[in-house]
Amino acid sequence: MERLFPSRYGYFSADGREYIITTPLTPRPWGNVISNGDYALMVSQTGSGYSWRNNAGQNRITRSFQDLVQDNWGKYLYLRDLDSGQFWSATYKPTLHAYDHYQVTHGLGYSRFAQEAYGIRSRLTVFVAPHDPVELFELTLTNLTDRPRRLDVTTYVEWLLGFAPDEHREFHKLFIDTAVDQSLNALLARKYLWGFADEEGRHNNIDWPYVAFIAASEPLKSFDGDKESFIGLYQSLEHPQAMQMATLAGRTGRFGDAIGALQVEVALAPGASHTIVFTLGAAEQGREDPAELIRRFTSPAASTQTLAAVHAFWSRLVDAEHVETPDPALNLMTNYWLKYQAISGRLWAKSALYQVSAGYGFRDQLQDSQIFLVCDPALAKRQILLHASQQFIEGDVLHWWFSIRGGGPRTNCSDDLLWLPFIVDSYLQETNDLAILDEPVPYLNGPAEPLYLHCKRAIERAFSRFSPRGIPLMGDHDWNDGLNAVGTHLRGESFWVAEFLYAILERWMPLAQQRGDAAFAERCAAVRETLRWATNRYGWDGEWFLQATTDDGLPLGSHANDEGRIFLMPNIWAVISGIADRERAWQAMESVSRHLLCEYGTLLNYPAFTRPRPDIGYVTRYAPGLRENGGVYTHAATWSVWAYALLGDAEKAYEAYRRICPPNRSADPDRYKAEPYVTPGNVDGPQSPYFGRGGWTWYTGSAQWLHRMATHWILGIRPQANGLLIDPLIPAAWDRFTVRRSFRGAVYEIEVLNPQHVSRGVATVEVDGQPLAGNVVPVFADGQTHRVRVVLG
Amino acid sequence: MERLFPSRYGYFSADGREYIITTPLTPRPWGNVISNGDYALMVSQTGSGYSWRNNAGQNRITRSFQDLVQDNWGKYLYLRDLDSGQFWSATYKPTLHAYDHYQVTHGLGYSRFAQEAYGIRSRLTVFVAPHDPVELFELTLTNLTDRPRRLDVTTYVEWLLGFAPDEHREFHKLFIDTAVDQSLNALLARKYLWGFADEEGRHNNIDWPYVAFIAASEPLKSFDGDKESFIGLYQSLEHPQAMQMATLAGRTGRFGDAIGALQVEVALAPGASHTIVFTLGAAEQGREDPAELIRRFTSPAASTQTLAAVHAFWSRLVDAEHVETPDPALNLMTNYWLKYQAISGRLWAKSALYQVSAGYGFRDQLQDSQIFLVCDPALAKRQILLHASQQFIEGDVLHWWFSIRGGGPRTNCSDDLLWLPFIVDSYLQETNDLAILDEPVPYLNGPAEPLYLHCKRAIERAFSRFSPRGIPLMGDHDWNDGLNAVGTHLRGESFWVAEFLYAILERWMPLAQQRGDAAFAERCAAVRETLRWATNRYGWDGEWFLQATTDDGLPLGSHANDEGRIFLMPNIWAVISGIADRERAWQAMESVSRHLLCEYGTLLNYPAFTRPRPDIGYVTRYAPGLRENGGVYTHAATWSVWAYALLGDAEKAYEAYRRICPPNRSADPDRYKAEPYVTPGNVDGPQSPYFGRGGWTWYTGSAQWLHRMATHWILGIRPQANGLLIDPLIPAAWDRFTVRRSFRGAVYEIEVLNPQHVSRGVATVEVDGQPLAGNVVPVFADGQTHRVRVVLG
Repeated sequence: MERLFPSRYGYFSADGREYIITTPLTPRPWGNVISNGDYALMVSQTGSGYSWRNNAGQNRITRSFQDLVQDNWGKYLYLRDLDSGQFWSATYKPTLHAYDHYQVTHGLGYSRFAQEAYGIRSRLTVFVAPHDPVELFELTLTNLTDRPRRLDVTTYVEWLLGFAPDEHREFHKLFIDTAVDQSLNALLARKYLWGFADEEGRHNNIDWPYVAFIAASEPLKSFDGDKESFIGLYQSLEHPQAMQMATLAGRTGRFGDAIGALQVEVALAPGASHTIVFTLGAAEQGREDPAELIRRFTSPAASTQTLAAVHAFWSRLVDAEHVETPDPALNLMTNYWLKYQAISGRLWAKSALYQVSAGYGFRDQLQDSQIFLVCDPALAKRQILLHASQQFIEGDVLHWWFSIRGGGPRTNCSDDLLWLPFIVDSYLQETNDLAILDEPVPYLNGPAEPLYLHCKRAIERAFSRFSPRGIPLMGDHDWNDGLNAVGTHLRGESFWVAEFLYAILERWMPLAQQRGDAAFAERCAAVRETLRWATNRYGWDGEWFLQATTDDGLPLGSHANDEGRIFLMPNIWAVISGIADRERAWQAMESVSRHLLCEYGTLLNYPAFTRPRPDIGYVTRYAPGLRENGGVYTHAATWSVWAYALLGDAEKAYEAYRRICPPNRSADPDRYKAEPYVTPGNVDGPQSPYFGRGGWTWYTGSAQWLHRMATHWILGIRPQANGLLIDPLIPAAWDRFTVRRSFRGAVYEIEVLNPQHVSRGVATVEVDGQPLAGNVVPVFADGQTHRVRVVLG
Repeated sequence: MERLFPSRYGYFSADGREYIITTPLTPRPWGNVISNGDYALMVSQTGSGYSWRNNAGQNRITRSFQDLVQDNWGKYLYLRDLDSGQFWSATYKPTLHAYDHYQVTHGLGYSRFAQEAYGIRSRLTVFVAPHDPVELFELTLTNLTDRPRRLDVTTYVEWLLGFAPDEHREFHKLFIDTAVDQSLNALLARKYLWGFADEEGRHNNIDWPYVAFIAASEPLKSFDGDKESFIGLYQSLEHPQAMQMATLAGRTGRFGDAIGALQVEVALAPGASHTIVFTLGAAEQGREDPAELIRRFTSPAASTQTLAAVHAFWSRLVDAEHVETPDPALNLMTNYWLKYQAISGRLWAKSALYQVSAGYGFRDQLQDSQIFLVCDPALAKRQILLHASQQFIEGDVLHWWFSIRGGGPRTNCSDDLLWLPFIVDSYLQETNDLAILDEPVPYLNGPAEPLYLHCKRAIERAFSRFSPRGIPLMGDHDWNDGLNAVGTHLRGESFWVAEFLYAILERWMPLAQQRGDAAFAERCAAVRETLRWATNRYGWDGEWFLQATTDDGLPLGSHANDEGRIFLMPNIWAVISGIADRERAWQAMESVSRHLLCEYGTLLNYPAFTRPRPDIGYVTRYAPGLRENGGVYTHAATWSVWAYALLGDAEKAYEAYRRICPPNRSADPDRYKAEPYVTPGNVDGPQSPYFGRGGWTWYTGSAQWLHRMATHWILGIRPQANGLLIDPLIPAAWDRFTVRRSFRGAVYEIEVLNPQHVSRGVATVEVDGQPLAGNVVPVFADGQTHRVRVVLG
């Protein structure tokens, strides 16, 4: 079988849909995260549906798997040979045992741990039911020896039932109640306290409103609900007391430190196999029946069926669009992994090793929702309306809010509110669904108004926060949260916000006109004029654009600065927004190429700050080269592809893309240290001694944008009101590429040929065998598949 | 040597000043907390001065040791034989090694870990300098073999530098910067981010304003500042990679996961000993010099001197009062351990395994401050004034506040504010220092006023929150925080608050008169009259007093209730406050004896709630028998001694005391599971399957009160305005007891003889050989020692 991007730790399968790890001894943090069965089970959860109600088609997230058990403390299966007493685990952790063979496969919505040890082959597949609050652990054991074997299998999870992380376990554990139900082969757990306030605002006065369960597909040999009796004094999960006892201790109730340990026994003739299924989940009291869930899912047959449903579930989401290019990294990230990361990790799980988020960021998941535009625009629409509901009638928004039960901070951030009109426009480009603008959405402090007015109020709020020079104020910060001291006193300016707003107004002027809101359209035009003049007048530093001015009037991102001399954002967005004329755009991007485009991507600024600047903010408190301080901050680095593409610089656009496309780092995993199949939040910059080290994987807004850069700006397939624009900007060496994607109720199979080996320029377009004038393929909306043949030259 | 209260895990030294543990394998949670060198080092810190500035005589706490390193992750010393490669640790954790001998001694302000393993005797003494921000680790190694030995010693601490617990290590670790200073044999650590907001309210925009250090008294063989290189991939603190390498990796800077590892080498001839000192601390930038601190403390001579200073420091605090009775448990707890617990654990450390507090509770440390009254009333005064400064001009207070940098919640709790006048009265009884009432103290939202007015405003605020029946409203809750749904709507009543206020008014009427505030005195008298009538009219349930009524008008603590039928607090405080006449007092306490006084102390209520009651609060969410739900809640259980004593029931008073006096539980450590030398917050009640199990040790307000119960109400030595009242209420079997204590500038050596074996009743009193009429020994204030001889009969 072909192995894509092989490294000494693993490889992609030939179709790109799986990543196979061949040893648990992978680098940190990759090792801890993915390969040894520790945190990995969580990643598989994020795969197939974390926030159950969300998947089931409702907006409100009521539960999350991270609040169910202490993931980072392990969800383990111990295997024990009852004749020899030898024990090990179905994953490398927690026993860190010797093995003859070890292999972990991560696919879309599942993880599989296959190993051979002590003459037993084990194959553990972990996944979550697509539409039900149940995680499944399917374990198949095979006797590889020529003698009969007697084994038992023991689960270990630590109940959390409420909030992750559990900051005060000594208190919270007191409220968890466990009980066994032998008729269900299950242990049930309830919690009589939940950190949220009750209806009257009293804390610690409501139940966690679910019944959690762990269940087995076979009768229980024994069980335990208490950590102390399981682990024993002065022992550990590596060698727990439970593995020295004939059976588990059988302690349940409300008086211990609650775990879920089930033990089942299995006899295997030589060569024989046997499959056991464990389920872990939580049923909402009064709405779901834990017994029904347990019975429905806890069997090998149900497991097989559910895993098939997981495959179908993800196929619907990822296979609505498929690209084939000469770049296998671009193919597999675009087709599978970036979609998977954005949807499962960001939109549903909100979770990664580095950050377990309890909320939605107003800007964050709004941007992420673009990932749904091809496969299921209705999901993007729902996300947009959800965010609009977190707006105040004054136009500003909750900077983030708890996705369970709501609530969050109202700040003076200068850009969060503007992402609403920006993303609505993106949704309209794809769908032309102008009806969304009429969708009534309530404000947090006001009655429902059409979405159009939400967007207008956001823009008008931004209009109310300008400096006397005509530049938007920085406020608490802009897109770069770490600039949190630049403009607190409402004097500092953000040139990037000026550009961002400029870009938004361009799209909203015609929309306002269309809706008969001529006054607003005119106001937008006037403000645009101001922004253009003022940004070019005050924001141009000579060779590039300034990032900001501080409350004290100091420039930031200027040749006059020793540190933070040039920032990426105002220069790429000068191009993206169109605020710069062609000459300045080239000059700005020339500076970006010279100062910021490094071996591992485009830096956010340079040189890094080497010591804290209380007048700038916490970005200066990071080590130089780390994250937003002179590192490659991947989210922004994706936009540099966009800017290069708009300039028409095919080579640079592709380089800026290629350098941050994770599989390309497979050659140096010990330097990179991050998984090669998801984007990292950041990569250390050249001022770090760990230049090239990736970090903060999974929970990053870069996944969706990296996907979009490939499809929209390299392959150049861009939806617009009247159809699908085809305007590739590719490496000249490419012979051809294909794109199959859904678009407004039809499927477009696009083949782009490049016989002249140009980088751009569409020579001819044929649709269903007929020549087309221009390069905008029309809307068919006929449910059919249409073949588009494009020749560059 | 005599061993007091020996159990299979340890014993008290004959003088009661030390507790010696003879095995690390003690029960949970005791084992984890104290004996294996893991958390134990923290307890030793709490011993000798946690909040440095506070010790040094200032009110403001600026730092705390818990914020310095991750205590619960270990502060370890590895020992390694350089010839064999064998390694182990100076404490049982983290290596869990075999040993020939193991002994841990906890004294006042220090802990000592002595062991013999691999032919090496190690003796590690850990303590904190009394007036400087430095913790010392004095390690003496002795070669017990007849061959020369070459060893190295390696420290391991994980830097935290900011807040404990560290909830988001992946983020916070990015801001820690380590550097080595070979000239100081030290590794320094700074942090460029602190969770507090800056002056402008911007979060994450200030440095942690200290330089932390770890230093050795010898040249460094090697060092490391990074956890990954120290532990290695897929290894652990039990067997770290560092122990397989010739030297440490030497990684420092801002790019890893910061630790402090120093390595020094030692050669020992047969029989030879050698002492190495390590210091750990933090110097305030611009105020202290880390180099000076390191040089001053990091040597064997300095260590010897500092440990002597620790002994002197604690001797001054504990030896100002000394009792000798036939009850060794009462003696050693009263003389040493309760004072030590209250001062080190509660007032200074605010820390224990179960709860690491970042703040002062308004009621909590105010009560605790009574522990200073004998040894240093100025410290009590300072604590009182500190709490008064957390009051609003409306009379109410911050329920708790952050002791570093301030701030906390303003609630509708009904009793917190009243502890101010209550404790001020207690202070006055001891000192007669009426000048304290004139001390100006600012309000949080108003200018300074004399302390008298602070107390008056607290009382007047309480006057403003009555029900139409003349009973104080429960508000958010009373002393029992868990009753947090009883009175949120300001209808539910608290009979206990009625009694508490009644007791306070009795003392404040004369004080108001004295200050010429006759109107207020009259108002107090009128309210007292109402309270007395209304409590007896509406609060009497037939055999005992009700605890409360709910917003819905249901009684709580009534024979009509199935669960929570009788509560301790309203019944003992009916006696303590004097609100009940003698008949009802007896009847109420008879009910307490019948329903609540159990084998392990006096229960807070009975029967326990078995299921959550949203209309009562989170007390009902605990398992039945646990903590405030039908357990012995030690804080309140101490007050039952007081009530029995006021009734004159010597036997019951002593029983109520004896059953909660921790050394008496030494006989059943596997049931009790808590350390025998500090009070637990609670002991499981009879409805728990773990009846008699102690929990939540160290961080409990019961320590100070248990001390006071012994001295004031059993031994009966009670300061009052005109002198020292002597009114013992003791077991009739006692022959005699003595009390030596300071009182208003003189020392009183009191001997009480009981030739008739009575429980109470003073027959004769002689002072300095002269007979005294009555039993109030006068105030001498002459700096002399006065001998008081009392004969009961």
